[in-house]
Amino acid sequence: MELWTIAPIAAIASIVSAIYLFIYVNKQNSGTAKMREIAEAIKEGANAFLKREYMYLAVFVAVIATVLAISLPNGPIMGIAYIFGSICSGLAGFFGMAVALKANVRSAQAAKEGLNKAFPIAFRGGAVMGLSVVGLALLGVSVVYYLTGDPQIVLGFSFGASAMALFAKAGGGIYTKTADVSADLVGKVEIGIPEDDPRNPAVIADNVGDNVGDVAGMGADLFDSYVASIVAVMILAVGLAPGISSFENPFVNLPLIFAGLGIFASILGVAIVRVGKKGNPGKALNWGTYLTCVIFAVLTFLATYYLEFNLNLESKLAIWGTAVIGLLAGVIIGITTDYFTSIDRPPAIKTAEAAQTGAAINIITGFSYGLISIVPPLLGIAVAATGAYFLAEASGISGVYGVGMSAIGMLSIVGMIVASDAYGPIVDNAKGIAEQSGLEDEVIDIADRLDAAGNTAKAITKGFAIGAAGLTVLALLAAYQEIVQNLTGQTISFDLMNPLVLTGALIGIAMPPLFSALVMLGVGKNAFRMIEEIRRQFREIPGLKEGKEGAKPDYATCVDIATKGALKELILPSVLSIVVTMVVGLVGGIEALGGYLGGSIFSGLIFALLMANAGGLWDNAKKYIEAGAFGGKGSNAHKAAVVGDTVGDPFKDTAGPSLNTMITVMSLVASVFAPIIVMYALF
Amino acid sequence: MELWTIAPIAAIASIVSAIYLFIYVNKQNSGTAKMREIAEAIKEGANAFLKREYMYLAVFVAVIATVLAISLPNGPIMGIAYIFGSICSGLAGFFGMAVALKANVRSAQAAKEGLNKAFPIAFRGGAVMGLSVVGLALLGVSVVYYLTGDPQIVLGFSFGASAMALFAKAGGGIYTKTADVSADLVGKVEIGIPEDDPRNPAVIADNVGDNVGDVAGMGADLFDSYVASIVAVMILAVGLAPGISSFENPFVNLPLIFAGLGIFASILGVAIVRVGKKGNPGKALNWGTYLTCVIFAVLTFLATYYLEFNLNLESKLAIWGTAVIGLLAGVIIGITTDYFTSIDRPPAIKTAEAAQTGAAINIITGFSYGLISIVPPLLGIAVAATGAYFLAEASGISGVYGVGMSAIGMLSIVGMIVASDAYGPIVDNAKGIAEQSGLEDEVIDIADRLDAAGNTAKAITKGFAIGAAGLTVLALLAAYQEIVQNLTGQTISFDLMNPLVLTGALIGIAMPPLFSALVMLGVGKNAFRMIEEIRRQFREIPGLKEGKEGAKPDYATCVDIATKGALKELILPSVLSIVVTMVVGLVGGIEALGGYLGGSIFSGLIFALLMANAGGLWDNAKKYIEAGAFGGKGSNAHKAAVVGDTVGDPFKDTAGPSLNTMITVMSLVASVFAPIIVMYALF
Repeated sequence: MELWTIAPIAAIASIVSAIYLFIYVNKQNSGTAKMREIAEAIKEGANAFLKREYMYLAVFVAVIATVLAISLPNGPIMGIAYIFGSICSGLAGFFGMAVALKANVRSAQAAKEGLNKAFPIAFRGGAVMGLSVVGLALLGVSVVYYLTGDPQIVLGFSFGASAMALFAKAGGGIYTKTADVSADLVGKVEIGIPEDDPRNPAVIADNVGDNVGDVAGMGADLFDSYVASIVAVMILAVGLAPGISSFENPFVNLPLIFAGLGIFASILGVAIVRVGKKGNPGKALNWGTYLTCVIFAVLTFLATYYLEFNLNLESKLAIWGTAVIGLLAGVIIGITTDYFTSIDRPPAIKTAEAAQTGAAINIITGFSYGLISIVPPLLGIAVAATGAYFLAEASGISGVYGVGMSAIGMLSIVGMIVASDAYGPIVDNAKGIAEQSGLEDEVIDIADRLDAAGNTAKAITKGFAIGAAGLTVLALLAAYQEIVQNLTGQTISFDLMNPLVLTGALIGIAMPPLFSALVMLGVGKNAFRMIEEIRRQFREIPGLKEGKEGAKPDYATCVDIATKGALKELILPSVLSIVVTMVVGLVGGIEALGGYLGGSIFSGLIFALLMANAGGLWDNAKKYIEAGAFGGKGSNAHKAAVVGDTVGDPFKDTAGPSLNTMITVMSLVASVFAPIIVMYALF
Repeated sequence: MELWTIAPIAAIASIVSAIYLFIYVNKQNSGTAKMREIAEAIKEGANAFLKREYMYLAVFVAVIATVLAISLPNGPIMGIAYIFGSICSGLAGFFGMAVALKANVRSAQAAKEGLNKAFPIAFRGGAVMGLSVVGLALLGVSVVYYLTGDPQIVLGFSFGASAMALFAKAGGGIYTKTADVSADLVGKVEIGIPEDDPRNPAVIADNVGDNVGDVAGMGADLFDSYVASIVAVMILAVGLAPGISSFENPFVNLPLIFAGLGIFASILGVAIVRVGKKGNPGKALNWGTYLTCVIFAVLTFLATYYLEFNLNLESKLAIWGTAVIGLLAGVIIGITTDYFTSIDRPPAIKTAEAAQTGAAINIITGFSYGLISIVPPLLGIAVAATGAYFLAEASGISGVYGVGMSAIGMLSIVGMIVASDAYGPIVDNAKGIAEQSGLEDEVIDIADRLDAAGNTAKAITKGFAIGAAGLTVLALLAAYQEIVQNLTGQTISFDLMNPLVLTGALIGIAMPPLFSALVMLGVGKNAFRMIEEIRRQFREIPGLKEGKEGAKPDYATCVDIATKGALKELILPSVLSIVVTMVVGLVGGIEALGGYLGGSIFSGLIFALLMANAGGLWDNAKKYIEAGAFGGKGSNAHKAAVVGDTVGDPFKDTAGPSLNTMITVMSLVASVFAPIIVMYALF
């Protein structure tokens, strides 16, 4: 048996575990008729979104697959791998959503019996998503690799996954904020009904948004980074042991083995997480993550030490070291993100304090701390990349391979990370269902505590996702360099003093801000259409405003408008991120394209961190005031903080998190189409 | 006579013209006793700020000069050049302020006789600043160069000018927004008195702010970029004609000659600008700028064609071409900036429209357009740099020299640019004086029209300043590379795939956001102190609130608090920008430092453009509503737009414009201390 088959075995184990957890969640009590009715409406809406998204995606995938098939040397196989990648990612999203839509109502029901009953349902619901993502991703990679033996074709698979991620993350992001903003503006501001009120035609769309944005979106995003990091390292590995088949190349096998062991660590981590009756679910989630890290480090150490790789011990340990460096960097980035966004830390408290002098000062203060929050993760990525590079070089291995392996290390525990993250929207939904179906106060209180833990976990996983994407795209940049060097037979460098590289970089740094702006303006346009519809329903459906028996809003139309609009607004930024990349490559040539990718990574990281963290900070500053500080709910400080929170919404849920995906897509476009660019470039 | 002496001759002509215009402004009627009293108070406040700023600066300069003298090979001479640089820039700022503080009240008085009487006073007041800046800058460069014959020592002069710029621009920026925010919050919001009301203890500090931020700050900023671009090109030039003395090296002489001709073009431009009784002062300013460009292009073409340079005609014309490319790029950047910030263009109108749905949507929309506005200037800089590079290379000259000459071209008309820019705060003050001293409505109306023209000019010159700084720091990066190559005798490249370069770049991109955050938080802290003082005065001075005869606020204390605080808040970011640069160089080595400078240029440009343009956009969106749209003054849309405008204030007047200076300072630190870094660096 070849060693790398640990990867497909782990992948299958992950999928089996996911199915087991799915069955566990499914057989729980799904609550009262009222609760089931609400859950059913959310489910219908989410499925409507998914269905339309997958339809659009199918067209998009078909077009790109055709382009790949026609234009590339290995065209038809690349096209098939591409389609397969998008299907695997889509399947993971589908499973994850399906269970999240069951776990929400079931954990709300279980909350009646206590925190320790509700928590495992929600967490295991999230774990289905986490294990599906890593399972399907690694299984897909293994299948393509087994059949072709060529990491270049695996690149096609990765490109397919990134197409899915772009739709799920950016489309879901536009959707969720469209629904959120419209529901609030008409419901709370114009009509004066509370949040989550079932009379509001947009309330279901709002609940759906949590699922499509946070469950399916985040899952697809990390599926994308996970696969991309593995394939980047495989490509870098091919050149390290020339002359031997890739199946026997230890450098190709190692990322697969480490990924497989990461899955086993995540399965164990998921199994360990539990919470007592009076326990703290936030701590439980964090401890689960830390333990998974330790298990991963131990498993990979043992594997490195005992397995026979055709490598000396020093090299093996160095490679293990690079993976651990990446993992540590991920944890540190998560912790600093937590500092800058937590409700009980100086940044949030000072931002809340500034709200006393008005919305503008609140926004400037939060924005400033958001800017400062960029520093530690960038240092973390820089230190991890440099450390991994020199550690690898010191034992005679290529430094960039070390950087790639540190990305593998960071992403190894993605199963656990996605599980914690998907827990968030499930308990958020559970709280909504508990409130809308009028459960007792103690139950809502438990749902509240579950929800608060979700917010903490979310901040950490977001920082983690950005850090992982950062290391991944650096590895992809190295893979791109490797590919063009192989194609041209020349040494290529991306020297900033080369005017083509510089021009590429200046265009590259402009892309993430442009993309962010287009998706945020997209939310505005889409919300405008939806607001019209909500107003129409309140105007035309008799008795709806007053809440008369039998007067039901038309939830489905709102869901439909948000869905159509989100996908429509997604087209321009998505097309730009592919077309501009191609144009820069075809006009400026391979060096300009390298500079372009470098530039996009730089500004992509900056804006992703700024937007995610400032958004989280404003949100928690508002919550800090709502908890009673500076005048509490209804005070002027609170009104000012609400403005900050609303500014932060599209920052943290639409624009910021889509940037990861965008820079990964651009890097993959460059690598996949490198043969054409090398052949036809003007410069 | 050597050809390069065109530079000192032009510089002296510029200073003589400035003195002539100073006398012209000074002999105008300085208005009524009331007007003189207000003007006197502003003057006292501004002088108090300058005095304290120069005191702090003297200590700072003494410390750095000592460090230079002790640590560098040419230490003592470098130290003297450094002190000389800061003195020349300081002198220019002093002259410019002195005349601005005379021109404000005199143009207010002249407005009684019509627009065509008031305009020349204000514009010529601004021109004194413009011509002082270029005159003293080029004279200083010429003197240092004449005495030492060594462009490296001129670098010391440039470094001195940048120290001054950091204090004037960032310190002035913190000062002006401290006063603005505090005056508004206590005066308008708490006490309920109108803006510019003489009862407000902070009103004079607010008026002073316009002068220290926009007149002295912008002047020092462009003094800095102007000198840095010239010295960067001189350093690049030395290697192009090895073996001959720099005085005979045509490549060293050309930037000096072009700069000299640029001054003559600016003097002519200043002389041409005039406006009829019913004329449009904004158009007059813009036409003055365009004509100056044409004159510059013609003068330099004639000089290139007819003067004997020891170069063939093709090379001479290529160099002329690179300068024209830079100039054109500057104009294009100015025009696009104008598009994104103008009151009658879609971005401002749509941002105003979004204010109807609240402050948050107004902010998101303006921020999004601000993000998009980054794209055209970056493209402009990229195209200019690439075009200049290849044009120079095509005729056998070093490409980076071409990039440097394009920066010279862009900065050649700085005299005219600063003149238009300094016009802005003069007419702003004039309007304030006219209102506070109760002049007739027609006079205030004329003052209003003069002021509106100032805002248009300001948007264009800001874009121009950022573009010029962009090309300048690229030239400085090349100069740094040249210096370290000469020191080490090796070819150095800044390859993004080199982990040291990458780590440097990741730290470099974090610096501008960090710097921005610190100065913005500084405004907040400083405003907090000043608000306390304003409240105290209203509480303790009997009859002040009611405006009783004889109850006078203590303006001086407010000015003093704003001054002390601004300089205090400036210390951390200034020290960081020098110390981190040294640490990166000493730990990471010369390649890491190259990456660091590259990274800081990238994110510096992004944030400078975003903050300047978004700030201008929110300001004009508010003005668009005030002009009657979407409910006009007092409507909900207006209130929302005011929040956006307040967020934009520190963006556009504090953080954004300081970034130019910051990245120039960092580049100069790297070049000046290169000998130490090469000798002691860890890597």
